[in-house]
Amino acid sequence: MALKAKVLYDFHSENPGEISITENETVTLFSEEELEGWLEGENSKGEAGLFPASYVEILRDHIASSASNNGFSSPKAQSPAHASYTSSDSQSQRGFGAGSGGGSSFHTSQGSDDDWDDDWDDGSPAPDAAKGLGTSPPLYPVTTSLPGRGGGQQQSGQQAKSSATVGRNLNRFSTFVKSGGEAFLLGEASAFVKDGDRICVVMGKHGPEWQEDPYPFTCTIDDPTKQTKFKGMKSYMSYGLTPTHTNVQVNRRYKHFDWLYARLVERFPVISVPHLPEKQATGRFEEDFISKRRKGLIWWMNHMTSHPVLAHCDVFQHFLTCGADEKAWKMGKRRAEKDELVGANFFLTISTPAVPLDLQDVESKIEGFKTFTKKMDENIVVVNTAINEFARKQITGFKKEYQKVGLSFKFLSQAFELDQQAYAVGLNRAINYTGEAYEAIGDYFAEQPRQDLDPISDLLDLYRGHLANFPDIIHVQKGALTKVKDCPKQEGELHDRCNIISCATLAEIQHFHRTRVRDFRSQMQHHLRQQISFFQKITAKLEDALQRYDDDQ
Amino acid sequence: MALKAKVLYDFHSENPGEISITENETVTLFSEEELEGWLEGENSKGEAGLFPASYVEILRDHIASSASNNGFSSPKAQSPAHASYTSSDSQSQRGFGAGSGGGSSFHTSQGSDDDWDDDWDDGSPAPDAAKGLGTSPPLYPVTTSLPGRGGGQQQSGQQAKSSATVGRNLNRFSTFVKSGGEAFLLGEASAFVKDGDRICVVMGKHGPEWQEDPYPFTCTIDDPTKQTKFKGMKSYMSYGLTPTHTNVQVNRRYKHFDWLYARLVERFPVISVPHLPEKQATGRFEEDFISKRRKGLIWWMNHMTSHPVLAHCDVFQHFLTCGADEKAWKMGKRRAEKDELVGANFFLTISTPAVPLDLQDVESKIEGFKTFTKKMDENIVVVNTAINEFARKQITGFKKEYQKVGLSFKFLSQAFELDQQAYAVGLNRAINYTGEAYEAIGDYFAEQPRQDLDPISDLLDLYRGHLANFPDIIHVQKGALTKVKDCPKQEGELHDRCNIISCATLAEIQHFHRTRVRDFRSQMQHHLRQQISFFQKITAKLEDALQRYDDDQ
Repeated sequence: MALKAKVLYDFHSENPGEISITENETVTLFSEEELEGWLEGENSKGEAGLFPASYVEILRDHIASSASNNGFSSPKAQSPAHASYTSSDSQSQRGFGAGSGGGSSFHTSQGSDDDWDDDWDDGSPAPDAAKGLGTSPPLYPVTTSLPGRGGGQQQSGQQAKSSATVGRNLNRFSTFVKSGGEAFLLGEASAFVKDGDRICVVMGKHGPEWQEDPYPFTCTIDDPTKQTKFKGMKSYMSYGLTPTHTNVQVNRRYKHFDWLYARLVERFPVISVPHLPEKQATGRFEEDFISKRRKGLIWWMNHMTSHPVLAHCDVFQHFLTCGADEKAWKMGKRRAEKDELVGANFFLTISTPAVPLDLQDVESKIEGFKTFTKKMDENIVVVNTAINEFARKQITGFKKEYQKVGLSFKFLSQAFELDQQAYAVGLNRAINYTGEAYEAIGDYFAEQPRQDLDPISDLLDLYRGHLANFPDIIHVQKGALTKVKDCPKQEGELHDRCNIISCATLAEIQHFHRTRVRDFRSQMQHHLRQQISFFQKITAKLEDALQRYDDDQ
Repeated sequence: MALKAKVLYDFHSENPGEISITENETVTLFSEEELEGWLEGENSKGEAGLFPASYVEILRDHIASSASNNGFSSPKAQSPAHASYTSSDSQSQRGFGAGSGGGSSFHTSQGSDDDWDDDWDDGSPAPDAAKGLGTSPPLYPVTTSLPGRGGGQQQSGQQAKSSATVGRNLNRFSTFVKSGGEAFLLGEASAFVKDGDRICVVMGKHGPEWQEDPYPFTCTIDDPTKQTKFKGMKSYMSYGLTPTHTNVQVNRRYKHFDWLYARLVERFPVISVPHLPEKQATGRFEEDFISKRRKGLIWWMNHMTSHPVLAHCDVFQHFLTCGADEKAWKMGKRRAEKDELVGANFFLTISTPAVPLDLQDVESKIEGFKTFTKKMDENIVVVNTAINEFARKQITGFKKEYQKVGLSFKFLSQAFELDQQAYAVGLNRAINYTGEAYEAIGDYFAEQPRQDLDPISDLLDLYRGHLANFPDIIHVQKGALTKVKDCPKQEGELHDRCNIISCATLAEIQHFHRTRVRDFRSQMQHHLRQQISFFQKITAKLEDALQRYDDDQ
């Protein structure tokens, strides 16, 4: 039985593969599964192709039976930005970046607690099969996020470049609608806001900013430990988290992070929720992957705890502080999933500075930031490519050259040893040692990228996630601004509400800049310090070798 | 009119392309030009091919007219090891190394003073044509010596490996004959030896050695200056030499070195005369070539002045001390060319320690040295290949990688500059400076090989020359030993004369080892010191960059 959907808004196709659809038209769906926010189907003119999932409403009566199979109460509950991606080929055909260049694409979980341990668990199904599973390609690519050094490195430039442009623009209007921005602007949002839920935007030196966190804290993440359950039939990695404000360790699995992330994205339409590190990396050793994910989670946690709004929201606090009591955990989990202050209602919680912003000024600031993010996105791709290539060269070429020279010096000393004159012994030993020193220096070069290039790469990954978030955030604000311009009569309340959205957006942008300056400063310093001690280590090795020529002379 | 030659000794062909010839047979020559000591012609059986030039005597009557054209009084005056090489293809066909892997092959000059400025002059024929000539390939390869980084680098391993084996062995017996070793051993040498010509071999701690130089001196070589003559029609480079024992500068051209070298080779059958740097390098900038030759000449001069016998011989002293008086120069030149104490007669000048050597002991020492030179020759090829490749990588790959990273950091700072917040300015500048620092480090890498790898390469060149000399020297000693074994009756005088040859050979070997240990010690130290200051320079640059992150914070 064919699936049907009702078209909610007009959509004009702009790219090959898309079809135009008209409000109130009924379209036939080929599948109810969304691809990156798009559905495939046929319009009433008989044209087949893609259209934005958010522009239509699936006619539920027809698919009641199949809906219960996949555990989703409604396809709309699945955020288009985080829908699972069934075919990586469609990416190149459609011309937009996988996961929009930065979005981790994983299933959101909003079903019953029963699917808590389903297949997307990050442990292996059985310890014995662990190795085999790690190397075989997954049936469905479980991540289309930032390609690391191991995997899709070569495509990363292409993907990321397109992230801020094609892929996002197609979702522009739907984002405004879906985020709740439109509903709020039109006065359709209403919810009870407790004092504790109130979020303040204040006027700072550089414009609106989130009120400073009065109770800042951080949170450490221990090395993950391998846990098993069902008598060893299933295994998973568990991370020990210790927030400084409670100083009590809680244990969380990757899927808990995953669940939290989905709640946060839903909850905060104009806040850039840091992306989680990729769920699975192919082609890397397990140990490398675990270490990389942990470093990614540490960065993620850093950005969570240093965000004045995210750090103190209920769901995150539940995540950080709920102990091993399963009942308490489930209660908090259900509370979070039933939270009313999501989407449109989020804006109800925001208090703005007394003086409203000048909307023209806001528009130009937003435009400037858009240009900034585009340029930054492009250029961190250049940096990432350069340092990944540099790391690769150090691990292979640089190491090889130093070791070849080292070996050749050792050969020289071997030839010289054929001359048994006593006065030559010291020299032979010294040349041999010099050869060993060069071989050691080759190893230093190969080990170095892990110390000073990988951390930059990790940082760039995190920022590419943020940069992938901002087009949606900007579109919410732009949507509001456009609506206000279109309806000049209804000035009062519409303006106020547009001011709220603008204040929140600018506060988030300001927060982004502050964090960016902090992070890049500290990472560049770290990098340079590491490089300095690396070259000092080489110098010391050479000085050691030089000394040998004075011995036995 | 066909050239004829009379066969002096039997020669049995051992390799494809060679023909056998019989004593007193008359052979027809296809050309009187020698290829690496070989002539091409037809024997009386009608077989055409190659045979050793030194085994025949060209019948002069037939070629009187053509002989005057090339300025050689006799082809025999041209040492087979230094004959010009007309076809580089014949090398691979014949299976022996070009120039025996180490011998600079240039024309020896023993004609009249009139050909002093002939075509093999090292200046360009006219200043205007200088550049064009520098890049066009010479009609006849003027050098087949050590392939430098520019030219035949890839073949160098192959060539040098064959140097100590195939190429030399073919000349073995002729060397014993030609050097005068045989004539001396058989008591056929006779000449008047002045006290000043006497050369002492003394018994040292490690065996026979040349008596230490009582009047050591060194000699500086200034940067060459370009001179012209014939009203600017011809130009040449002139080197100012200042020996420390006279402290008077004399000016010499490359061809003077060349002439001197020929005299020394002829004069001292068992002394390893250092090879001159290559006459012409193709594919390198003129400036590079001049600098490389000068460095080569400095090394050459160092080995000349530090050799107790070579340093004080008449012809070298004439070369070092004769001023601008052309008459005096020509007189000394003629005297040197008429010197009777060449070849066989050289051995008449040698005084040995009182106790004769044990010939079995000598044989085993010589065998050991032969093994040593073979191994050293092989392994310095490995070193040379490794450091040349290392230099090339630093100049290209290493530089490129650092500059790519540098450029990417500059791109990052450019993106960041789009954010005009005051608190970001310091960071942007610091990142930009870091980019510049990386670009500078790239340049450091590219400049470094000239400081610490090229000098090793120059040293290896010099030593490959010595290693190419030793097979001939060893063959003279071995020839004598074989002769003594073959004629056990004539013990007395034959033994004494064999002892003289053995003492001289071992003294030269001992000198070689001492110089080798001295040179390699000092060059390795120089290399390491340069490397250390190189890495310190990089560290300083990075520390400078790091400091920028503290500014404007």
